[in-house]
Amino acid sequence: MADKQKVVLAFSGGLDTSFCVKYLTEDRGMDVYSVLVDTGGFSAEDLAAIEARAYSLGVVSHAVVTKTDDYYQECLKFLVFGNVLKNNTYPLCVSAERIFQAIAAAEYARQIGASAIAHGSTGAGNDQVRFDMAFRIIMPEAEIITPIRDMRLSREAEIEYLKNKGVDQEWHKAAYSINKGLWGTSVGGKETLTSSQYLPESAWPTPVTKSGEETITLTFTHGELKGIKSAAYGDEAFKNPVAAIQRLTELAGPYGIGRDIHVGDTIIGIKGRVGFEAPAPLIIIKAHHTLEKHVLTKNQLAWKDQLANFYGTTLHEGQFMDPVMRNIETFLADTQAHVTGEVHVQLAPYRFTVLGIESPYDLMSAKFGSYGEMNNAWTGDDVRGFSKVASNQVMIYERVKAGQ
Amino acid sequence: MADKQKVVLAFSGGLDTSFCVKYLTEDRGMDVYSVLVDTGGFSAEDLAAIEARAYSLGVVSHAVVTKTDDYYQECLKFLVFGNVLKNNTYPLCVSAERIFQAIAAAEYARQIGASAIAHGSTGAGNDQVRFDMAFRIIMPEAEIITPIRDMRLSREAEIEYLKNKGVDQEWHKAAYSINKGLWGTSVGGKETLTSSQYLPESAWPTPVTKSGEETITLTFTHGELKGIKSAAYGDEAFKNPVAAIQRLTELAGPYGIGRDIHVGDTIIGIKGRVGFEAPAPLIIIKAHHTLEKHVLTKNQLAWKDQLANFYGTTLHEGQFMDPVMRNIETFLADTQAHVTGEVHVQLAPYRFTVLGIESPYDLMSAKFGSYGEMNNAWTGDDVRGFSKVASNQVMIYERVKAGQ
Amino acid sequence: MADKQKVVLAFSGGLDTSFCVKYLTEDRGMDVYSVLVDTGGFSAEDLAAIEARAYSLGVVSHAVVTKTDDYYQECLKFLVFGNVLKNNTYPLCVSAERIFQAIAAAEYARQIGASAIAHGSTGAGNDQVRFDMAFRIIMPEAEIITPIRDMRLSREAEIEYLKNKGVDQEWHKAAYSINKGLWGTSVGGKETLTSSQYLPESAWPTPVTKSGEETITLTFTHGELKGIKSAAYGDEAFKNPVAAIQRLTELAGPYGIGRDIHVGDTIIGIKGRVGFEAPAPLIIIKAHHTLEKHVLTKNQLAWKDQLANFYGTTLHEGQFMDPVMRNIETFLADTQAHVTGEVHVQLAPYRFTVLGIESPYDLMSAKFGSYGEMNNAWTGDDVRGFSKVASNQVMIYERVKAGQ
Amino acid sequence: MADKQKVVLAFSGGLDTSFCVKYLTEDRGMDVYSVLVDTGGFSAEDLAAIEARAYSLGVVSHAVVTKTDDYYQECLKFLVFGNVLKNNTYPLCVSAERIFQAIAAAEYARQIGASAIAHGSTGAGNDQVRFDMAFRIIMPEAEIITPIRDMRLSREAEIEYLKNKGVDQEWHKAAYSINKGLWGTSVGGKETLTSSQYLPESAWPTPVTKSGEETITLTFTHGELKGIKSAAYGDEAFKNPVAAIQRLTELAGPYGIGRDIHVGDTIIGIKGRVGFEAPAPLIIIKAHHTLEKHVLTKNQLAWKDQLANFYGTTLHEGQFMDPVMRNIETFLADTQAHVTGEVHVQLAPYRFTVLGIESPYDLMSAKFGSYGEMNNAWTGDDVRGFSKVASNQVMIYERVKAGQ
Repeated sequence: MADKQKVVLAFSGGLDTSFCVKYLTEDRGMDVYSVLVDTGGFSAEDLAAIEARAYSLGVVSHAVVTKTDDYYQECLKFLVFGNVLKNNTYPLCVSAERIFQAIAAAEYARQIGASAIAHGSTGAGNDQVRFDMAFRIIMPEAEIITPIRDMRLSREAEIEYLKNKGVDQEWHKAAYSINKGLWGTSVGGKETLTSSQYLPESAWPTPVTKSGEETITLTFTHGELKGIKSAAYGDEAFKNPVAAIQRLTELAGPYGIGRDIHVGDTIIGIKGRVGFEAPAPLIIIKAHHTLEKHVLTKNQLAWKDQLANFYGTTLHEGQFMDPVMRNIETFLADTQAHVTGEVHVQLAPYRFTVLGIESPYDLMSAKFGSYGEMNNAWTGDDVRGFSKVASNQVMIYERVKAGQ
Repeated sequence: MADKQKVVLAFSGGLDTSFCVKYLTEDRGMDVYSVLVDTGGFSAEDLAAIEARAYSLGVVSHAVVTKTDDYYQECLKFLVFGNVLKNNTYPLCVSAERIFQAIAAAEYARQIGASAIAHGSTGAGNDQVRFDMAFRIIMPEAEIITPIRDMRLSREAEIEYLKNKGVDQEWHKAAYSINKGLWGTSVGGKETLTSSQYLPESAWPTPVTKSGEETITLTFTHGELKGIKSAAYGDEAFKNPVAAIQRLTELAGPYGIGRDIHVGDTIIGIKGRVGFEAPAPLIIIKAHHTLEKHVLTKNQLAWKDQLANFYGTTLHEGQFMDPVMRNIETFLADTQAHVTGEVHVQLAPYRFTVLGIESPYDLMSAKFGSYGEMNNAWTGDDVRGFSKVASNQVMIYERVKAGQ
Repeated sequence: MADKQKVVLAFSGGLDTSFCVKYLTEDRGMDVYSVLVDTGGFSAEDLAAIEARAYSLGVVSHAVVTKTDDYYQECLKFLVFGNVLKNNTYPLCVSAERIFQAIAAAEYARQIGASAIAHGSTGAGNDQVRFDMAFRIIMPEAEIITPIRDMRLSREAEIEYLKNKGVDQEWHKAAYSINKGLWGTSVGGKETLTSSQYLPESAWPTPVTKSGEETITLTFTHGELKGIKSAAYGDEAFKNPVAAIQRLTELAGPYGIGRDIHVGDTIIGIKGRVGFEAPAPLIIIKAHHTLEKHVLTKNQLAWKDQLANFYGTTLHEGQFMDPVMRNIETFLADTQAHVTGEVHVQLAPYRFTVLGIESPYDLMSAKFGSYGEMNNAWTGDDVRGFSKVASNQVMIYERVKAGQ
Repeated sequence: MADKQKVVLAFSGGLDTSFCVKYLTEDRGMDVYSVLVDTGGFSAEDLAAIEARAYSLGVVSHAVVTKTDDYYQECLKFLVFGNVLKNNTYPLCVSAERIFQAIAAAEYARQIGASAIAHGSTGAGNDQVRFDMAFRIIMPEAEIITPIRDMRLSREAEIEYLKNKGVDQEWHKAAYSINKGLWGTSVGGKETLTSSQYLPESAWPTPVTKSGEETITLTFTHGELKGIKSAAYGDEAFKNPVAAIQRLTELAGPYGIGRDIHVGDTIIGIKGRVGFEAPAPLIIIKAHHTLEKHVLTKNQLAWKDQLANFYGTTLHEGQFMDPVMRNIETFLADTQAHVTGEVHVQLAPYRFTVLGIESPYDLMSAKFGSYGEMNNAWTGDDVRGFSKVASNQVMIYERVKAGQ
């Protein structure tokens, strides 16, 4: 019917969003326009299967919005520029992706003139806030519908509901909840629900199949990964860093590199613990940071750190659309002019080592004096003078304190 | 003679400071009072050999000032509280130690009424500034004498000079310059003089002799490491964290854990690159940080990071005596009230993994809702309201921008 | 009746909270325990009148919790130590007071075993969040009742309701909403509801009755105002800085000093504009800051600023109970050891000038060299060396950039 | 002679640099190329008189490098964007100007192929470091000559020397040292040499000749002052903000607005105290800041503050050429997109008041709810939910702490 309410649903094909299709269509009498935002975590088969599922559940239309390149250009790039690891640990694999999906879903809803938007988040995590906020900022007039959160349905209740609606499929309950994305894969469940235990080998999605050591070389141009040299693929140049990230994941993942568990502050105030395997982000960030330590000034390094920490936290908390984020991106991009060079990295089971760098902008040039070696750029008296002036204030402070 | 000038020399027993003894005594006609400040990097034999060397070179007196506990209580403790790794890498093994040695040497000079103080630093590194500054702040009226820096002597010239003075010993020229201390060992030379290469296995002071994996448990009390459980030693309690650091070094060092290369900004403006092996600091800091992520609030974690970064950099640059450092220490100590608990750590060749924590102050308590699980502490409507209010400003910003 | 629900109501005697008493008592059938938290903004007559009003409306009990000293010791003191002016303008007159009142009301409710707590805030300001948060943190199990916010009652509807309940008094509708407190008085209404106009002379509570100029001297001891010298009162020492704040308000208020309008970010995301007259805070903070500029090091000044900005914002936003606030207070207090001395201040209509300071800890001592004057503490060569070393990194950067 | 050494001297026409001309020419046998960098502080007559003086003293050539527009475009603009007042007080009148003059002088020296550069700074202030650093960074190979600093000459000795060289003019010893520039005028001497006294009325260069009050309106476009409405000049549009700054100085200076004394940390570690009158900077910055408080988000305001504080301090300390300064400028400029609107300012003797603003980007729009007023953008329940979620962490913290 022409006068049914048009609702856009962020659809993943899982139990929760499948429930939402049926619920919105049948119980709420809406026309459901499902949308899947692809940020690089889906294969072609995944996408086809999800589309088929959507139509079989009764959506009016299913759309795939491809955002992989935008995701890199508008977000991941800056996480690299800023060497962003939340609490020095977590590369924000899921946080970044979810924000992008939420924004794209809201923009899609606005384009097709929907009057409501829905997401399948529960009431217990960060994602609900990210969806809520993106929806409200981009479509403030739209109704936001969150059936799973509002009805507090158990998994069993959802399955039962779907069965009653004729959807009688096997809903596989995985031991761990896995979110696979371009910037890493998160792993949650069992051990991560409490504080004291690590994930078992079997929980990690990528099995460790490589042994021994191999050295690869990453080429950065203005801060972006544009080339990888490896024994397996030779010397590859990538126009698109997305492909480089995928190649690096392929090279390093089977070593079990980039695994860790992060415990962090959720947007809703509780602590959350999650495992992740993110070989590409961890290698890229440490390699990029090492290169930066050679080519940037002390002040550039210090301010990048501060701004990037805030950038990561604010992204994580769903405030990605605050205009200060654009201002910070401008800053970060401006710092990358000299971040060009090669970084040698050794891969080995469960670990990697940044071996060294080569760059035309390396400030550690023997021409200007080597650390610990004699040189001609300054004299002992220069340093003596420096030390004297640099200690002036504290020297005065100490004498004033002593009443001298 | 009673009217000779009294000079205190920070003495290590190496070529440079041996040269200084002879030079100050014979060429400058001074009474040399050598002093060695022990911050935990010397064995009893080391100390005896250095003392013998000092007297054989002609010092009037040789003193050993033991500062290991003070070094921990007044400095290392705060590096743990702050999880200080310079540029997320370097635990400041040498920086912290040298500052302490410089301050203690200056205080010794003041106590014995010296009118000059000397150090054997060259003109090419950070240490010269640290000594200069500590000397000037604590004894502003004393002459600071730096023969090696001022005369720009080559190694060969120093050896020749000493030989002419009758000191005809073998001066071993190591392939790498090693500085062993309580908080780690630095390794410089060959590969670290340029940017592209890593240190070879043979360059690392501690050979890798352990294989396989073992799990240990660290117990922190108010942020301090006070216990270690290990298969080798059972359940040990340490009144003094210094002993715990030493035990941890013993347990983890033979795995080759804690090795890396850091390139950083020296005080004199050039970049410096140095290898280090610091198993205890790296394990303690990651374990301590993980525990903190469970027991501190988001704001505490964020501010600790900022202040600790500044603390580390300022320590590194020799400004340890600035009163702001005491203010920051007060802050850091105040944050540790709840940083009490056990941290499980797995050791393996060249790497370690923090497995999990247990603490009575863990904020990740199921009582208050689990991440990703249903709970009773808030409703979907509460989060909906939160998201709406939290997105208010950017929503308004977007509408004003769009001219709505 | 014994089984009526016991509700604590933060009561001010105004229309909104008067409505609440009747509503809670009669419509909700509760026993109302009204509480007024005095942080220094009430006279004895005010307090008596409010108490009479409470009982006449039908409360079971009315309590006055006096928190003036605590308010100073646990909050205002740190606003002085930190020179806190939000956005360099607003001394947080209302923010600080409201937090304290909310916390004290919640603690009172816990003490008397109430099962609900109520406040009369509307849904449009900061205060509702401050009350909500303090109530929830201190009494998480209590019901929070907010009749005015929830029922969105107009002023007229409230008056009508009360009249129907037999409360037939004159409810004066002031042209401006005034909040008088120890740390300043806020003025809102008419002009402050939009952006372009200033408050008229008649809107300011304190009329300007003094003319000409007079000079007073403030004495700070470890950062606290402990003495005032003035022509009117001679040389006064105050054991309690609360009395000093009151005296300074009395001296400076009739000059019209300390008036301004602030526009700031509310907790709920909209911008809010409010006038204030706060002579004592503005004079104390500028005087204190000037003294600090003489006695603290550069690094102390810089970090105090950063932490204090965060402290002010976080207080303003009602997160006063976050433990990081206690950590910051420890830091701020630790910086005040030398903030002792006299500050001369000239008062004049609508403005004041800090004339100068005297302190035994003044680092601007001629003994150590005067700015712009010759001295003996360092030579031209020392500064030349300093400049050379301090410019090293950028010099190298420029040459590397130029490909030299 | 063709083989004389070519030295560029930063020349002001005062006693110190006049001495330098003679000294460099006659005692050192150099060809002196004097240069004056005009950043807007000189009249045409000033410039002509200084040129005549230079030639009369014997320079080979005298050049005037006009940098007023560059000074605004490359520096002052960012001080406005950042609302930079050092320690919330001082607009960096002299600091900014001196850096620009030093850089321009060094670039001039490089252009004409000089092998040495000279400045007349004494050894007691900030300027020597600014000149040293700019010279060393831009011309690292050039000799830096500083006769006044190195020879520690007294004023009398300089006069005597010049008299002996036939320069027998009256060297007026002003009671105060005045530095007049586009961004304000500094006043040092007598009272500013110690801590306790203010400058007398007679010391201020601009006499107070206006009384009463007048209101002007400043128009900002993307953060830049592009228009002024005043009774005296009507509605003026300025293509060039330099002219607007000059007009504002003319309007407000005769009220005695913008006077204060700053005590700050010099680059050489001592405290320095200086008076300034800077009506235009103080009015522009407060007006600009007020406008920003209406149009920027909370996060933008907070980060601008932090970066701008660092920017100002680093500029002040002569590190203007650090590339991080360009990165920060990029950030600041990026924040100004919406900083467009009118600001109404009332001028009165010794003070000014920002009355209000009007801007199409004002976020304080009644459409989105007014502070303290009822609105439709959110409900009481939304705020209740917000408060509950926002207090979650501290609520949990308190319960964990209490052992519940």
